[in-house]
Amino acid sequence: MLIFHSDNTRLRQARTELHDGTLVAPFECPERIDLVLKHIQKTAVGEVREPKSYGLDPVLAVHDAGYVNFLADCWHEWVAAGHEGEAIPNIWPARTMRGDRIPHTVSGKLGYYALAAETSITEGTFEAAMASKDVALGATSHTLATGEPSYGLCRPPGHHAAVDQFGGYCFFNNAAVAAQWALNQGKRRVAILDVDFHHGNGTQQIFYERDDVLFISLHGDPEVTFPYYLGYADETGLGSGEGFNVNYPLPPGTSVATWMATLDNALGQIKQTQCDMLIVSLGVDIFEGDPISAFTFKNSDFEILGQRLSSADLPTVLLMEGGYAVDDIGINVVNVLQGFKQGIS
Amino acid sequence: MLIFHSDNTRLRQARTELHDGTLVAPFECPERIDLVLKHIQKTAVGEVREPKSYGLDPVLAVHDAGYVNFLADCWHEWVAAGHEGEAIPNIWPARTMRGDRIPHTVSGKLGYYALAAETSITEGTFEAAMASKDVALGATSHTLATGEPSYGLCRPPGHHAAVDQFGGYCFFNNAAVAAQWALNQGKRRVAILDVDFHHGNGTQQIFYERDDVLFISLHGDPEVTFPYYLGYADETGLGSGEGFNVNYPLPPGTSVATWMATLDNALGQIKQTQCDMLIVSLGVDIFEGDPISAFTFKNSDFEILGQRLSSADLPTVLLMEGGYAVDDIGINVVNVLQGFKQGIS
Repeated sequence: MLIFHSDNTRLRQARTELHDGTLVAPFECPERIDLVLKHIQKTAVGEVREPKSYGLDPVLAVHDAGYVNFLADCWHEWVAAGHEGEAIPNIWPARTMRGDRIPHTVSGKLGYYALAAETSITEGTFEAAMASKDVALGATSHTLATGEPSYGLCRPPGHHAAVDQFGGYCFFNNAAVAAQWALNQGKRRVAILDVDFHHGNGTQQIFYERDDVLFISLHGDPEVTFPYYLGYADETGLGSGEGFNVNYPLPPGTSVATWMATLDNALGQIKQTQCDMLIVSLGVDIFEGDPISAFTFKNSDFEILGQRLSSADLPTVLLMEGGYAVDDIGINVVNVLQGFKQGIS
Repeated sequence: MLIFHSDNTRLRQARTELHDGTLVAPFECPERIDLVLKHIQKTAVGEVREPKSYGLDPVLAVHDAGYVNFLADCWHEWVAAGHEGEAIPNIWPARTMRGDRIPHTVSGKLGYYALAAETSITEGTFEAAMASKDVALGATSHTLATGEPSYGLCRPPGHHAAVDQFGGYCFFNNAAVAAQWALNQGKRRVAILDVDFHHGNGTQQIFYERDDVLFISLHGDPEVTFPYYLGYADETGLGSGEGFNVNYPLPPGTSVATWMATLDNALGQIKQTQCDMLIVSLGVDIFEGDPISAFTFKNSDFEILGQRLSSADLPTVLLMEGGYAVDDIGINVVNVLQGFKQGIS
């Protein structure tokens, strides 16, 4: 299995995350990449390849141009405005205010384009996001060209990023960029299966009214879990997208058996919906030791996950989303890849 | 002039404010009360009186019951959930998510009921907010009973608090609670004139569709100034409230002459609209030395402001909102009160 990686994904080196009312060192850190890469190399699960640059067009195919410009300029504007820390919004277009005005100043734009405040914008954030979507597009292009599965070691992750909002450590929605790319290359319907512990609110929002992308997510119940305001079971798509959005919110502590049975339902729906490609938003924060999640996967369960994913029998791209238990993150990713390889062999 | 004050307004002693991407000591601090009170006593501008307790009913007349319950319980729930810092939201129902779900957990409720993240919820916040609205109601009751002007040394301030959202240092909207109280006591139409540097988004939102409260605000242009997403000139009220909301956004650095000319327009509108009571949201952060504002008032201009306010010739309640240049805050408040007294003598 080919593995796509770019050193530039390390360019985002944020110092602060707003967590529990304090500023802490971010859970989403460049060391995640090092640990996964190290275990990939140690196990020789696949050849690591650097993607080419795909430019901004594939990003603009799913994201708002004003939003992309904002991400490109934000850090420079923030510094020029004399702000001390990293760029963290402290106000936003709340329910009782207007959502139709984009203020001129960076603080106002920051709140407009943010959906969460744990994710600061820093020097190198835009460049890392650019590298991350190139990783996703490199993997997707390889799978499109060969039919072989591929893995994109994306960082920052993408599934919380909406058409025009960042947050949850995400800036460009790598899975959405990849799915749109695949459609543009001739695929008819792409399934995005999101197994990250957190609901992929951004991916859902981007494709909510479309039937050419089936979005299915298994995740911690938003009643009690980030991102709280999306990911409920009654969100089934809108207009021609009706029926093409499927949420499986699961309570914290859900057993692996229940989780796997839910996955089988999801795989059945992917088969029924006649998708011709599978993109997996692969968060390994479903691990029992993850510091900010609450599912119960053990290392070996990730191998079973890989096997099941391969049973979809579709051209498959696995893209990295969350996973913060740094010591185990490499083992868990490699176990998914090994399981997938076993499944197709 | 009677001055209403409660020691319990000091019960909110927050340690952190999210500002410029860092956590700093809050600009809105109990020392503000001490400094104003000290200068009031030094100048003997009026007798200081403790208000009685008015309970929750006057609050529930303008605020959502679920919101009030949330404020009462938030700190205890936050601590019980094991969070380390003060209660600061790091996600909210953003534009690309749902606004109709109130999650079960305190973190989810916090984001739902917040409109900004600079304002932490802490031990004593609810109690201080209760004292602050009692100060407003004590002053209002005195003016209703006697026709005499009164000043309420409210803290925390109120004008950013909406029907069901806190932020901008505000929890209960003291001016809105007072206006509704006056209407319930027989007034026909109350003018709320907001001279704080920041737009009174909460007051606007609470009365936006009503014609029994005229809301007029002079403030820093939201294009470049907090709260960014409300306070534009095209917000004129809705339904029967059409024409009863007037915003005067002014650029940073606006001269006092321009500001005073705008005030005269506002006072003319209050006269035309046949209001029978005036409540002033008195922020003294229009002072040239204010650390988070950008107007150009000198100490002596506040005396002129007081004189002009008295020219409305209405039963008047002055309620404290912002003002953060701590050394001058007492002088500026007293100058308004002295000017007002001169105007009516």
